[in-house]
Amino acid sequence: MDVSVDGTENFVIGVDFGTLSGRAVVVRVRDGKELGSGVFDYPHGVVTESLPAVAADVVDDGAARLPGDWALQVPNDYRDVLRHAVPAAIADAGIDPAAVVGIATDFTACTMVPVKADGTPLNELAGFASRPHAYVKLWRHHAAQPQADRINALAAERGESWLPRYGGLISSEWEFAKGLQLLEEDPETYAAMDHWVEAADWIVWQLCGNYVRNACTAGYKGIYQDGRYPSEDFLAALNPQFKDFVSTKLEHTIGRLGDAAGYLTAEAAAWTGLPEGIAVAVGNVDAHVTAPAARAVEPGQLVAIMGTSTCHVMNGTELHEVPGMCGVVDGGIVDGLWGYEAGQSGVGDIFGWFTKNGVPPEYHHAAEAAGLGIHEYLTELAASQAIGEHGLIALDWHSGNRSVLVDHELSGLVLGQTLATRPEDTYRALLEATAFGTRTIVDAFRDSGVPVKEFIVAGGLVKNGLLMQIYADVTGLQLSTIGSSQGPALGSAIHAAVAAGRYPDIRAAAAAMGSEPGAVFTPVPENVAAYEELLQEYRTLHDHFGRGANDVMHRLKAIQRRSVRPLVTAGVSA
Amino acid sequence: MDVSVDGTENFVIGVDFGTLSGRAVVVRVRDGKELGSGVFDYPHGVVTESLPAVAADVVDDGAARLPGDWALQVPNDYRDVLRHAVPAAIADAGIDPAAVVGIATDFTACTMVPVKADGTPLNELAGFASRPHAYVKLWRHHAAQPQADRINALAAERGESWLPRYGGLISSEWEFAKGLQLLEEDPETYAAMDHWVEAADWIVWQLCGNYVRNACTAGYKGIYQDGRYPSEDFLAALNPQFKDFVSTKLEHTIGRLGDAAGYLTAEAAAWTGLPEGIAVAVGNVDAHVTAPAARAVEPGQLVAIMGTSTCHVMNGTELHEVPGMCGVVDGGIVDGLWGYEAGQSGVGDIFGWFTKNGVPPEYHHAAEAAGLGIHEYLTELAASQAIGEHGLIALDWHSGNRSVLVDHELSGLVLGQTLATRPEDTYRALLEATAFGTRTIVDAFRDSGVPVKEFIVAGGLVKNGLLMQIYADVTGLQLSTIGSSQGPALGSAIHAAVAAGRYPDIRAAAAAMGSEPGAVFTPVPENVAAYEELLQEYRTLHDHFGRGANDVMHRLKAIQRRSVRPLVTAGVSA
Repeated sequence: MDVSVDGTENFVIGVDFGTLSGRAVVVRVRDGKELGSGVFDYPHGVVTESLPAVAADVVDDGAARLPGDWALQVPNDYRDVLRHAVPAAIADAGIDPAAVVGIATDFTACTMVPVKADGTPLNELAGFASRPHAYVKLWRHHAAQPQADRINALAAERGESWLPRYGGLISSEWEFAKGLQLLEEDPETYAAMDHWVEAADWIVWQLCGNYVRNACTAGYKGIYQDGRYPSEDFLAALNPQFKDFVSTKLEHTIGRLGDAAGYLTAEAAAWTGLPEGIAVAVGNVDAHVTAPAARAVEPGQLVAIMGTSTCHVMNGTELHEVPGMCGVVDGGIVDGLWGYEAGQSGVGDIFGWFTKNGVPPEYHHAAEAAGLGIHEYLTELAASQAIGEHGLIALDWHSGNRSVLVDHELSGLVLGQTLATRPEDTYRALLEATAFGTRTIVDAFRDSGVPVKEFIVAGGLVKNGLLMQIYADVTGLQLSTIGSSQGPALGSAIHAAVAAGRYPDIRAAAAAMGSEPGAVFTPVPENVAAYEELLQEYRTLHDHFGRGANDVMHRLKAIQRRSVRPLVTAGVSA
Repeated sequence: MDVSVDGTENFVIGVDFGTLSGRAVVVRVRDGKELGSGVFDYPHGVVTESLPAVAADVVDDGAARLPGDWALQVPNDYRDVLRHAVPAAIADAGIDPAAVVGIATDFTACTMVPVKADGTPLNELAGFASRPHAYVKLWRHHAAQPQADRINALAAERGESWLPRYGGLISSEWEFAKGLQLLEEDPETYAAMDHWVEAADWIVWQLCGNYVRNACTAGYKGIYQDGRYPSEDFLAALNPQFKDFVSTKLEHTIGRLGDAAGYLTAEAAAWTGLPEGIAVAVGNVDAHVTAPAARAVEPGQLVAIMGTSTCHVMNGTELHEVPGMCGVVDGGIVDGLWGYEAGQSGVGDIFGWFTKNGVPPEYHHAAEAAGLGIHEYLTELAASQAIGEHGLIALDWHSGNRSVLVDHELSGLVLGQTLATRPEDTYRALLEATAFGTRTIVDAFRDSGVPVKEFIVAGGLVKNGLLMQIYADVTGLQLSTIGSSQGPALGSAIHAAVAAGRYPDIRAAAAAMGSEPGAVFTPVPENVAAYEELLQEYRTLHDHFGRGANDVMHRLKAIQRRSVRPLVTAGVSA
């Protein structure tokens, strides 16, 4: 087809909203070539300690330290990405912005924004800046576990047909659990809220002025199956006040992936420097949008997007129920196939936590002297070890466990440390623990009739060659990395091209614009055998602490909650 | 009695040989007043990585990295303590050395020196400097576990009457296990050795020229019970070459605690600046010698000497068999009572390992800015927490477990870490884990008919008030700290006074010279209740990983041993 109907090159913009920053990329419509990019760090990052003083009416509220399982964000940080990263990408590419024909975005999920009818986030309203519940609940906000537990227990009891679509368990990370927590802990804020919106859709609303719910998160995170949400009966049984949650807080239209949600407003054109009126694609999720960027949209191609967390997406021809998967959604990745999703709630986050909290000064100095980042330095040291030499085994549950246990009350474990244990030993054990976590997911898919044939990795962690080899050895699968270093942003750009009418569908656009494979890692038989032995130890600990034989992790969380000062959730007038 | 028969004040010297340094103290005979002290760090510290180049014939042997469970020392470091710390203590006290009437020493145990007939350590001989087995095996050398396992299995099978005196298990730290390892791994060095000597007795030999075996270590570490060592039959069954171990390597006389082993030689007088011919007391162990220093020589007074490791000593009127205790020896602490010993193989060592390997630069900077050591800084942060607030539970087995499991193949565990876990959280969990370890020992004594009535703490860790309060709360016992900061050295000085004939026995000398109590910590009922809940979690994990339900720690050590390069133990000619 003719992708440059007017005889000149056309471009699209993909913007990937991650956990700590947003990145924009300029992509050529004809062949997917990435011409420039820009990154902007969220000024407030992840809010886990205390609320930022974002409004004049905020009072000194030092006692309100957020509990450890809270994770909030500030929505204006997302607008700032549009203001800074998009113009930076255009400048970096050196193109004429007038040649841009569409923009698409992808986002972390399930990340929820409570807003007024016009889309204004509640934390921006007078009187709400000091209320934690008025802020964005980031995907990794895990404080709604009690609500998720009730949703799961009730759904199982009532035999709700949607429950098996989510591996038998709804996550505390998702829309309904977080919404119910909001209602029950801060009913005033709940009452003031007109829409409970995925950030993926909120940012599209900011760009085009329309609130269109993307089919991907509606299915994967919003329990939207076979054209409907959970019933009022079900919701009322959870909490009578929650009965009309769907009708009063979730009212929207559904947009199919790759469709246009609307066209760039004058205000958003001013923020971004892009032409008013260009196509704005329906929102999408960072992980799912990466599959076309990796040209991995065929059944059996498992794409793992490995960053702070890992999301696994894969298409299948049939509907199967896989224990502990995140969800299966018809057309959730591309039209015409069942999109499967699984996930590990902490991966790069765990490595980052360790380097920030557990590595002594000498190592930082040595890394600096060698001109390396601390991750690179530890990886170099760890790479020289034989498998099992460190004597450790870890459970990668520092951020809870998504697949296959779906339990955010689980926590991390490191076993085997001695006085001779060095930081690189623990670091390597944590890398390996996440690989064992992925292996557990691959095995669950296989055991449920959805075999994994190929393993494609995208995301920030692809650059760690040791980690990639460990994953190949632990899974026994050939592993290839995506060639593009901007997988999600490229995937969004592919959606922008479809929304702008430049390709008929995602599969065609992916074929033309998707990235060539990058590096390939082949399992080494000797390593595979050595890791099988450690994997047995991981499995034993995984099942012992994860399946109820010793619920110590749950009890410690309960003790922890009792011991700390209660969160102040009520608003304080100025 | 007249303690200054010549009408002038008399003084004694106590020298405490610890894991990393030796300290001497000058004490007034009349009342135990400590007048001055001196410390000297061992130049070679603990040798855990590779042998020091201590002799000209040492070759470049970079491949011979010691395995993680090895811990060696260099005996000349101990002589250096006599040369430096004793004169420094005299100078600090400002006394006339001619008024010193006796010297006594105490040592870590079981710390073994292989020597020639004249007491020369093997590592000082030409051709032996490159042989790991020619060096001192420090108490915490844990590489003789396979030998200890065989000793235990055989003793149990044969029903050896001495086995229950050691809680049913001989430690890999002790004389027979270490001696058997030496024989089996380096028979040439074993053949060259004339005596296998406790460092406690070797240093006395250096001072007075006589090799006298102290009754304390003979009983606690040397399996010397009811006047005899294990039989030749038993030893031959372990290994035919080991049959004559006792007759060829352990020949000695036994000296009672508080007796004089001999008198200061001219050479040692020159090293120390003390008068030639003064009394040199029979050697002793750092822990046991502390009981008189704390005036804690009555039944039911448990003395815990808390430093890198913890040793618990207590007198009892009757012989009881306590599972997992280190030993019970008639007159092992004072004449006329049964001396009980238990121990935790890693305590301050674990805290030190954590601060060295697991605390990020920001914390070191903040500690420095606040004028605090890193331990003090972390303790301040940890002290502000409610019990259970950190959400963690740890097993204090980083250096294995002595009492009550007697298994040095066990290893450390930290459970409950999340992305919100900070260094002070893990630090506090490690403090608490060691307190749970002590509680386990107190319970074992009680359950075996040896009730603990009072808890007295000595050693370097007494200065950590948070740690002391945690121990009081976890044990539910009133805890007092020894007033002297030089417990073992003062205890040695008390023995020196007895050896010099200035008191009739240890109990009389302890009454006159022992330290007043220092701080007292009373259990807080609310804290006791909170810790009971965490203690249950500790016990469950302790029994699960320590009593065979999941032997993962053993298996990881086996995998680790297979994975690393073998230790080069054969000598290399120059």
